Amino acid sequence: MKGYAMLTIGQTGWIEKERPVCGPLDAICRPIALAPCTSDVHTVWAGAIGERKNMILGHEAVGEIVEVGHLVRDFKVGDKVLVSAITPDWNSLEAQGGYAMHSGGMLSGWKFSNFKDGVFAEYFHVNDADGNLAPLPEGMDLGAAAMLSDMMPTGFHGAELAEIAFGDNVAVIGIGPVGLMSVAACAIRGAAQIYAVGSRPNCTALAREYGATEVINYRTGDIVSQIMEQTHGAGVDKVIVAGGDNQTFMQAMEIVKPGGIISNVNYLGQGDTVPIPRAAWGFGMGHKQLRGGLMPGGRRRSEYLARLITTGRIHPEKLISHTFNGLEGVEQALIMMKDKPQDLIKPLVIV
Amino acid sequence: MKGYAMLTIGQTGWIEKERPVCGPLDAICRPIALAPCTSDVHTVWAGAIGERKNMILGHEAVGEIVEVGHLVRDFKVGDKVLVSAITPDWNSLEAQGGYAMHSGGMLSGWKFSNFKDGVFAEYFHVNDADGNLAPLPEGMDLGAAAMLSDMMPTGFHGAELAEIAFGDNVAVIGIGPVGLMSVAACAIRGAAQIYAVGSRPNCTALAREYGATEVINYRTGDIVSQIMEQTHGAGVDKVIVAGGDNQTFMQAMEIVKPGGIISNVNYLGQGDTVPIPRAAWGFGMGHKQLRGGLMPGGRRRSEYLARLITTGRIHPEKLISHTFNGLEGVEQALIMMKDKPQDLIKPLVIV
Amino acid sequence: MKGYAMLTIGQTGWIEKERPVCGPLDAICRPIALAPCTSDVHTVWAGAIGERKNMILGHEAVGEIVEVGHLVRDFKVGDKVLVSAITPDWNSLEAQGGYAMHSGGMLSGWKFSNFKDGVFAEYFHVNDADGNLAPLPEGMDLGAAAMLSDMMPTGFHGAELAEIAFGDNVAVIGIGPVGLMSVAACAIRGAAQIYAVGSRPNCTALAREYGATEVINYRTGDIVSQIMEQTHGAGVDKVIVAGGDNQTFMQAMEIVKPGGIISNVNYLGQGDTVPIPRAAWGFGMGHKQLRGGLMPGGRRRSEYLARLITTGRIHPEKLISHTFNGLEGVEQALIMMKDKPQDLIKPLVIV
Amino acid sequence: MKGYAMLTIGQTGWIEKERPVCGPLDAICRPIALAPCTSDVHTVWAGAIGERKNMILGHEAVGEIVEVGHLVRDFKVGDKVLVSAITPDWNSLEAQGGYAMHSGGMLSGWKFSNFKDGVFAEYFHVNDADGNLAPLPEGMDLGAAAMLSDMMPTGFHGAELAEIAFGDNVAVIGIGPVGLMSVAACAIRGAAQIYAVGSRPNCTALAREYGATEVINYRTGDIVSQIMEQTHGAGVDKVIVAGGDNQTFMQAMEIVKPGGIISNVNYLGQGDTVPIPRAAWGFGMGHKQLRGGLMPGGRRRSEYLARLITTGRIHPEKLISHTFNGLEGVEQALIMMKDKPQDLIKPLVIV
Repeated sequence: MKGYAMLTIGQTGWIEKERPVCGPLDAICRPIALAPCTSDVHTVWAGAIGERKNMILGHEAVGEIVEVGHLVRDFKVGDKVLVSAITPDWNSLEAQGGYAMHSGGMLSGWKFSNFKDGVFAEYFHVNDADGNLAPLPEGMDLGAAAMLSDMMPTGFHGAELAEIAFGDNVAVIGIGPVGLMSVAACAIRGAAQIYAVGSRPNCTALAREYGATEVINYRTGDIVSQIMEQTHGAGVDKVIVAGGDNQTFMQAMEIVKPGGIISNVNYLGQGDTVPIPRAAWGFGMGHKQLRGGLMPGGRRRSEYLARLITTGRIHPEKLISHTFNGLEGVEQALIMMKDKPQDLIKPLVIV
Repeated sequence: MKGYAMLTIGQTGWIEKERPVCGPLDAICRPIALAPCTSDVHTVWAGAIGERKNMILGHEAVGEIVEVGHLVRDFKVGDKVLVSAITPDWNSLEAQGGYAMHSGGMLSGWKFSNFKDGVFAEYFHVNDADGNLAPLPEGMDLGAAAMLSDMMPTGFHGAELAEIAFGDNVAVIGIGPVGLMSVAACAIRGAAQIYAVGSRPNCTALAREYGATEVINYRTGDIVSQIMEQTHGAGVDKVIVAGGDNQTFMQAMEIVKPGGIISNVNYLGQGDTVPIPRAAWGFGMGHKQLRGGLMPGGRRRSEYLARLITTGRIHPEKLISHTFNGLEGVEQALIMMKDKPQDLIKPLVIV
Repeated sequence: MKGYAMLTIGQTGWIEKERPVCGPLDAICRPIALAPCTSDVHTVWAGAIGERKNMILGHEAVGEIVEVGHLVRDFKVGDKVLVSAITPDWNSLEAQGGYAMHSGGMLSGWKFSNFKDGVFAEYFHVNDADGNLAPLPEGMDLGAAAMLSDMMPTGFHGAELAEIAFGDNVAVIGIGPVGLMSVAACAIRGAAQIYAVGSRPNCTALAREYGATEVINYRTGDIVSQIMEQTHGAGVDKVIVAGGDNQTFMQAMEIVKPGGIISNVNYLGQGDTVPIPRAAWGFGMGHKQLRGGLMPGGRRRSEYLARLITTGRIHPEKLISHTFNGLEGVEQALIMMKDKPQDLIKPLVIV
Repeated sequence: MKGYAMLTIGQTGWIEKERPVCGPLDAICRPIALAPCTSDVHTVWAGAIGERKNMILGHEAVGEIVEVGHLVRDFKVGDKVLVSAITPDWNSLEAQGGYAMHSGGMLSGWKFSNFKDGVFAEYFHVNDADGNLAPLPEGMDLGAAAMLSDMMPTGFHGAELAEIAFGDNVAVIGIGPVGLMSVAACAIRGAAQIYAVGSRPNCTALAREYGATEVINYRTGDIVSQIMEQTHGAGVDKVIVAGGDNQTFMQAMEIVKPGGIISNVNYLGQGDTVPIPRAAWGFGMGHKQLRGGLMPGGRRRSEYLARLITTGRIHPEKLISHTFNGLEGVEQALIMMKDKPQDLIKPLVIV
């Protein structure tokens, strides 16, 4: 079969591989819709997870099942399915302890285009089909469905980790597709003021549409002073970090109140350490929590978030700024993610 | 001063009383807006809290401060304020333990028209002004502001106790003003399907406007079978009880899933016991939690919920179906609450 | 193979059956130690789970693996193992949602001697060996190990559901083996006063040894008045129900403080409804939570609780009041559980 | 009156001051027992909270009330009382939100020897007597009682922030008096293995007595490699930081598992930033939470922790390694805290 792969660090291309083998609990799918992710870009061009040779890329997909293992209970060939980017081993100790995304080791619930071939191929393999696939709800927009692989569960996890409470004022730092989903998540989680930190016009416009009450442009001034001014010196109850870099936590700690939470869903790709400002952290005693975590994956998560789309509470398809057709479109879409043209939010490939 | 009072069980009338005395931590307010509550009706005509003689009624108000104690830090004469229906003693053991509404004994954070005169008077007394008043945000609709005393914090507490999570399917049983606020709270807390159980046309219409996806009419069939049918036998993740009676928990336990929560914000006025169905409760082992609690009161609560109004997330003023003018309007408004005409949701009195 | 079975409601006996078949994820074990449970008694003589014909009884066991499926990663033939009484399907929606014990339906994580043959046989079948077995720690007393199947995880779950906090005063109603484990759990969870409600001398003695500060004998007076007197009218912060019947919750609700929790781990075998006292529940508004749930099962749970034994924090082997030898001993042990002689706490069978 | 004061940064001495004035909600106490704290040392000799002139030191005390304000409900002259080191404003927004220790601003619940004179004087002032004092239980050892001001609530808060669960393996870094209380707290909170990191013989001996299963001596090797070796590469579930410096979090993050918590109760006195290791933090996605907070103060906290002493669950008086007599003993005791002789754990002054 044909797949679009990382050939080595810094190089991508189309390769031929054997179609993956289906274990007794597994499924083999063909892609219906695909989307490239910033982490695909980091994997290839920043070598973020180390060297990989001829590994098919991609972890965001909607699929159709072409083969299922004999122990699979709930799915059959021909079923159209939501595919979670994170596909845990559900009987692992980590999953039993509530952290399925770290099953088998930290971050090891992330398997596509990390420990095995990804979804940018004619066929892809899903471990534990019953646990990690979910039925594609009838009539669901394919763009929305594709956002259920990673963008929406990751962005929503930012709001979950931050424990947004009714009336909280929140800053969301970074409003790429994940941060935009965090903004939307906060708005339907009961936040009041949402300060969206970003600069690109279509992202800031969509942030407002998703519920941001203010846009903070880091290009026009320090974000700490802007937010402290707008909150009359009080700061915010919670901060979600969905962009920036290691230094971002210096700012986040300054603007969050005692008793608040900083929640990170941004993969930190560089640097040895992440600095925390001692005084703003209350000399270690300010009850400002720092959290961060890989999205929870699996079937239940997909089903529950899908309900928010089918009931019209959320419209993740608005993230889709560019659409390509055919499997070969993933190449152009990935390059677009790498080059980040000004009007990009998220590309989609309809296969 | 003049006040509208419960004279004895079953009788109300206007009385003259001394203006209340302001302690060093307290405030005396004159009402700007008032609203009667179903619990005023229960207090007078059902004798729900026992006998009271010549006690001024009312616990929902927006006020203007006319006197403050010398230890009050943050308020001054002339300030317009949100008044919480529940005004705890904040240094009590109960408050320190997270249950301020029970400061001094179960439910004893409820003082207006319970342990002291209420707000339906030319002047009313607020204990611990710094802890229990909040500034009236500039430009806030007075109807919305009055709903911050009780309707909104009580309805929202139903959603808090139920620990609504993203994508939960929820049933809200009872869609009077409190239940309608629970519907709205669920919708901005991340619920997916919201089954609103009620029958009156303007309530069901507003329930849909606030985010209910389905209306279940108990007059046209058993609500358990209707909800089980609509959920394909799965039941709902959470149930909020905002109406009905002691038997309602029999139904609630049937429709909630294992691992779910039944959250009550309805004052149960009659009967010795509340029956729970043994089998539906999983023989005591189904992890179906039963909770219920008086609304959290106080200043912080008022401020945080007020933010949801000022940011436009919620519109409690839509509850106001009838408006009266002048203090004397509280009489007509209360009688209306007692008689419950078909088109009533909530009356408001602008003083 | 030979097994000790429920022949029909009210009858038990030894039967011959085929040795169970091992699926690819499963294990077949022979028993090393076994214990009968009150629920075996309820199953047979009260028909608590309905009719069952020739079903082998028992769900408390320590075993040795004699066969493993080819997909099992972590266990091999000859391994000695702790066997959880509850053996969930870990990829189910319920398990992904945190309620593995209800995987496949309420209480359906309970499979032994419910949906399939139990452990009182020459061989027994364990679904998902990696997820539901745990290595028997070297040198662990077999009596202690057998208590890890059900008594300890169930008793400890009572303390977990009650959310015991530092300094809480707690009542534990019922001090059979599960209640005794709840007492011990409270003591190592930071409770202060522990009121153990029971009457049998060896149980009350062991309750004190496990950390109870007071024993309340229900035979010498009403437990509500005894506990209210001892707490100077304040009541307790939490109540764990590990015995009694449906009426017990009437008492529990009277003695628990507003903001408190009643946690049930007692299987309620009879009656249509469980009555809750309306006034003591604060008319539905007292923030007195009612919870109850089947023990969490699985490997991680077994491993974490086992650590408390290997570090000497807890000594569940003290529950063992009678020991029998040989598989055939399960008959005598079960009859003893049924007859409840005065000096019984828990019988053990060493195979 | 006479008091032992910080004269300026680096200098202490006895001074004469006016006896403090008692407000309507307050109490004036004379000390019965006192203890100096490491933070007194930091305040004077490291200038940790900035310059203070002639400020009486000390925040750990047991007292007797000599005067009460007229609004105080529950205390009277002559009552002996536990005094919390942290004395919040209970009606503040922060307290209403669950973070009373930050009432009026980050860390501002800490008033003694910070914003006002401390307890090392003939008389000291306590704001909000009802909210911040607790009755001294009859017969309680004065050393134990003095440890209820700060050592025990701070050490126990480490275990609370870490959310110790049954069977957790825990590392406690730093076993001065606070860390020793954290060890004891973990042991009665249900931890299994407790790795106590320290070196001084009497501290390590007491750590074992309080429940540590292993002592890790940082002088004999890297603590990360020692703990990873002892846990067979798994690391620990939780880490409590009660000593060390900003670099300690580098180690803590290495040894804690994904899904774990690092909880800090150590005041970080120096440096601009606290570095977090990017890779060990899972590139921001490992669900390793970082928390830290000032102890919760107030009356309820004192009463609940006191119960653990009166029921014999915990023996904080074992911390007292040296005892002095008379108010003037505070000088010697403080100098001892500064000089840290090898056999010091905690000095006590009986007045």
